[in-house]
Amino acid sequence: MRDAGKFDGALGVLLPIAALMELRRREVALPFAIEVIGFSEEEGVRFSSAYLGSKGYTNQLAPADLTLRDSDGITVAQAIRRWRESAPPSTRMTARPPRQPREWLGYLEVHIEQGPVLERENLAVGVVSAIAGQTRVRCTFRGGAGHAGTTPMALRRDALAGAAEFMTVAEGLARASEPLVVTVGTLSVAPGAPNVIPGEVVFSLDVRHPRDGSRRAALRLLRVAAKKIAHDRRLTCTWEQTQDNAAVACSPEFTVSLEQSVRAVQGRSLSLVSGAGHDAVVLSALTPVSMLFVRCRDGLSHHPDEFVSPADIEVALRVVVDFLARLGSR
Amino acid sequence: MRDAGKFDGALGVLLPIAALMELRRREVALPFAIEVIGFSEEEGVRFSSAYLGSKGYTNQLAPADLTLRDSDGITVAQAIRRWRESAPPSTRMTARPPRQPREWLGYLEVHIEQGPVLERENLAVGVVSAIAGQTRVRCTFRGGAGHAGTTPMALRRDALAGAAEFMTVAEGLARASEPLVVTVGTLSVAPGAPNVIPGEVVFSLDVRHPRDGSRRAALRLLRVAAKKIAHDRRLTCTWEQTQDNAAVACSPEFTVSLEQSVRAVQGRSLSLVSGAGHDAVVLSALTPVSMLFVRCRDGLSHHPDEFVSPADIEVALRVVVDFLARLGSR
Repeated sequence: MRDAGKFDGALGVLLPIAALMELRRREVALPFAIEVIGFSEEEGVRFSSAYLGSKGYTNQLAPADLTLRDSDGITVAQAIRRWRESAPPSTRMTARPPRQPREWLGYLEVHIEQGPVLERENLAVGVVSAIAGQTRVRCTFRGGAGHAGTTPMALRRDALAGAAEFMTVAEGLARASEPLVVTVGTLSVAPGAPNVIPGEVVFSLDVRHPRDGSRRAALRLLRVAAKKIAHDRRLTCTWEQTQDNAAVACSPEFTVSLEQSVRAVQGRSLSLVSGAGHDAVVLSALTPVSMLFVRCRDGLSHHPDEFVSPADIEVALRVVVDFLARLGSR
Repeated sequence: MRDAGKFDGALGVLLPIAALMELRRREVALPFAIEVIGFSEEEGVRFSSAYLGSKGYTNQLAPADLTLRDSDGITVAQAIRRWRESAPPSTRMTARPPRQPREWLGYLEVHIEQGPVLERENLAVGVVSAIAGQTRVRCTFRGGAGHAGTTPMALRRDALAGAAEFMTVAEGLARASEPLVVTVGTLSVAPGAPNVIPGEVVFSLDVRHPRDGSRRAALRLLRVAAKKIAHDRRLTCTWEQTQDNAAVACSPEFTVSLEQSVRAVQGRSLSLVSGAGHDAVVLSALTPVSMLFVRCRDGLSHHPDEFVSPADIEVALRVVVDFLARLGSR
């Protein structure tokens, strides 16, 4: 996103560079190589598809990805070619990136939390246990539009009243099933006049859970609830799944090690689930991944007011240095 | 509305003409004069203000009404002047309309039900006991937009979840308080993305009841519920009343007499509340009013498929003839 804050992504590139400088200053010798990678296009802003940079780096771009076009009509393939031709020599890729799983030891990603949990817990950093799986659904309730004055409640087939009942059920299920999160982020009403009973409502449903089985179980319950509510109200309900991403578990070994470093630096380690997707999702196809979350103010992200304090960045830096040194000494 | 069906309004003009023809055919002499009036602009389609025709006829137009403009920029005052100048002599108003209450005996309006009750009760016509009062509210819930993946349920300030809870409460109140009707007909969500928790929701509320006290009591309860739901969810709630019309009771004397005629013609008389407004609301300021509703198919109105059967129109015609003859013989 344009003007969307300066920590989401960038912190994960600059902090490891500072960590490597610190390791060099301390003259720590490591038995493995470290690459700091700044992936482009994680958000999917330019080509409306997430993870294009990390997919390209790890050879996971599908042929269809290469033909995606930006708003100027430039394809991903053309953009890569132009970048290769125009980048100054010092920034050009000089070595073949490691693409085989056996060439990797692991992948660590530092990222702002983009949520409010660390702030609530008064902690600078936390360790990610998993990146939640995510399913999106487009749900439509259809009833009958009618006159708001002349149709008694008992004779109504109000699509919005049905959607409201469903949203209340969905919220209740999520509240009772932490860390499940369920969000209705868009909702449109037709015909959409103050004196007309809504005949049709379309809304989005976003369902996330760190365990795929739990997410799928929640989706089954929600779908049954939607159909039941529609049936009881003489509405119809269509349920279209528009996106479905499996959860990614972080490496147990790296996570334990990262937690040791967090405890060493800030006293207490908190385990967090990442509700948002990250490049670690793509890297997990090749190598064990781990993630360190850094507290951000008000949980705010994708906004110019996005903020991470220098003190919290220092804590994160010390954790990463400790983690790498610990890993090298094993 | 354009192409909005041919019975809403028109039936109430043509049926009384047929009734007068029938009275003349039977050579019934009445001790009062009857005027059949076709009011224009009941819906407010041209000038976005309801009842302009009946207000003009009964001298209730406010100065502000006369300066309202249509989509061509023509004011109500100009439209009236042009009509006076251009209408053929036979259609021009020849006599001063009765404007003083003492000049009126009463007002009877025949209208399609625009609702499903008569159809459900398998009756051709019904007698209106009152025209419901109506209040419209614009309600806004504001919380905090947030990431649908990274914000746990307990930390959300989801404006749409609050609105859903309120809508469920409002529907429950109305269902338990017949003939109260409560409708949320419009609802908009901001920011409005599938992966963003809604930060603001604005919706309309339409509340109607034949008794003003009951409508006001319901509004008080609904307002308290909205504020309480907002408070419990750390949302803010603004509640703006945008319209408030008192209920109009039909004349008890005329209603009893009309019920006698209905029983005489179709065996059973059903008392109905009109949830929609009609010109009778305006006329009630001058004279006792009564209304006869005629069944329409599927409760449908304001639509090209609007339909009233010839058999039902005949029942209504016989009721009106009987009612007028009975009134004249008293």
